[in-house]
Amino acid sequence: MSTELLVHVGPDPSPQLEQAVRDGGGTLVGAVAEAEAIVWRGSPEQLQPLLHDGIRWVQLPSAGVEHWLESGLIDTAGARRWTAATGAYGAITAEHAFALLLAGLRRLPECARASSWQGDALEGGTLFGTTVAIIGAGGIGRALIAMLEPFGVTVLAVNRSGREVPGAAEIVPFTRVGELWPRADAVVLCAPATAETHHLLDAAALAALPAHAWVVNVARGSLVDTDALVRAFADGAIAGAALDVTDPEPLPADHPLWREPRALITPHTANPAGPLRIALAERVRENVARLREDRELLGIVDPARGY
Amino acid sequence: MSTELLVHVGPDPSPQLEQAVRDGGGTLVGAVAEAEAIVWRGSPEQLQPLLHDGIRWVQLPSAGVEHWLESGLIDTAGARRWTAATGAYGAITAEHAFALLLAGLRRLPECARASSWQGDALEGGTLFGTTVAIIGAGGIGRALIAMLEPFGVTVLAVNRSGREVPGAAEIVPFTRVGELWPRADAVVLCAPATAETHHLLDAAALAALPAHAWVVNVARGSLVDTDALVRAFADGAIAGAALDVTDPEPLPADHPLWREPRALITPHTANPAGPLRIALAERVRENVARLREDRELLGIVDPARGY
Repeated sequence: MSTELLVHVGPDPSPQLEQAVRDGGGTLVGAVAEAEAIVWRGSPEQLQPLLHDGIRWVQLPSAGVEHWLESGLIDTAGARRWTAATGAYGAITAEHAFALLLAGLRRLPECARASSWQGDALEGGTLFGTTVAIIGAGGIGRALIAMLEPFGVTVLAVNRSGREVPGAAEIVPFTRVGELWPRADAVVLCAPATAETHHLLDAAALAALPAHAWVVNVARGSLVDTDALVRAFADGAIAGAALDVTDPEPLPADHPLWREPRALITPHTANPAGPLRIALAERVRENVARLREDRELLGIVDPARGY
Repeated sequence: MSTELLVHVGPDPSPQLEQAVRDGGGTLVGAVAEAEAIVWRGSPEQLQPLLHDGIRWVQLPSAGVEHWLESGLIDTAGARRWTAATGAYGAITAEHAFALLLAGLRRLPECARASSWQGDALEGGTLFGTTVAIIGAGGIGRALIAMLEPFGVTVLAVNRSGREVPGAAEIVPFTRVGELWPRADAVVLCAPATAETHHLLDAAALAALPAHAWVVNVARGSLVDTDALVRAFADGAIAGAALDVTDPEPLPADHPLWREPRALITPHTANPAGPLRIALAERVRENVARLREDRELLGIVDPARGY
């Protein structure tokens, strides 16, 4: 069963979000007074005077909603639901991590820098049959696991709780991450920067990895000991590293990693603006469809929880 | 229900294939006389004197088995089944095509060539929500469709017959391929080189693609009109091209594509030797398990059909 849903997109027109509302089966209305739901890209201050009792759902554009919580506008006592874009952007970052991993295995950085045909000398490897350690099993890690599925990859996941992660063959807490290094054909870092993850990949961890292992970092530069990484390249301790984040960041122009054949640096571009807009539109489409079908919305904000 | 299966691997020892037999639940035997099944990497002439009535399955290592058919050794009158590696290697090539496509969208070739941090200037795009035209829906194309699935890609498939392709939103025959160009955010060429596919991507096709489109070729160089491609770059008619095969091949060192920022050339390395061995081992594991469970084997050779 699905019903008509009158949705206002504001404060400015957005053809992309308006199309997403239509794709989800919603009906666009120009006047907030007529709407039951609002997709809002403006501030809490702009929204406050427009809210009325008929509004039963507000979609916010960001994953973090601290300033919305501070505004006091979000009230869960009533029937109105507020949703953030929580989790909507993880897949975009995961896609970048996945692109970096495949590029490394297939030796695309070396191919890109070549100026002549080098034949078999540039033959690479494959994801098929490999074991990949995913450090941090939040939205990015979970999206990445789904992308690895067609390759029959064995996923070793590391998270704070050690709680189950769908698609992972094993889950260990951060305290036991050292057990995974010798078994990992590749390591993808996608955990928050915390005291626990600072220099998680240090000299000892890099030495424990197989010599054919690739390292991918889409989290924060502080998770890797950069000087130890430079030495690991010199020692042949790993096959390569693809980094979207560095320490220091930006990486200075005279840094040795720029000249390392098996390194690939992307300048913190895992979350490009265009793809993020696409991800938000997809979330809007999905939530419009869910509300119409009276299913649970994605990214519900809970002020008690703080997000 | 599964039963014991005695398997001989020959003519030389292969730890990788022996492990695959064990992983499939088979039992390795050193003497062919004791075996019920043979995984064979040698010639028909080497195998002939060893065959006996107790052998009910022979796995061959290649996808093409012309010389085996010519040898007359393959006889389907009896109960013995012969299997080739047909389809086992498609996924390896598809993985390369997929790596090239993601690398292009995420602008990894430009990142690889950079020697300093360029920030947002190198922001790329995403596969999410795109439409990808897959030219040739054989083993490579089908494996690629499975890899695109987590990205919600709309797949437009082109094959000779116009027959159904699992996972494709639409299928058209080669005669109607022109209809697809304006709708494709990316084109992946993985069809055989035939008169029908010669210069399939010519000046008119390149002009019909959206300016943001990426072209990936893992088929044969002849499918693309290389001179037209160079002009398409100059005209801004496409966003980029990632080519594992070229025309001429090898691409001469003075060719303009080596200097094109939005081009990525890999030197016919979509099928590296190591990954192909992994793919064969996986096929052996799967077929051993299938024979033990009395399920249909993959890649059965039919002399009447010629493959």
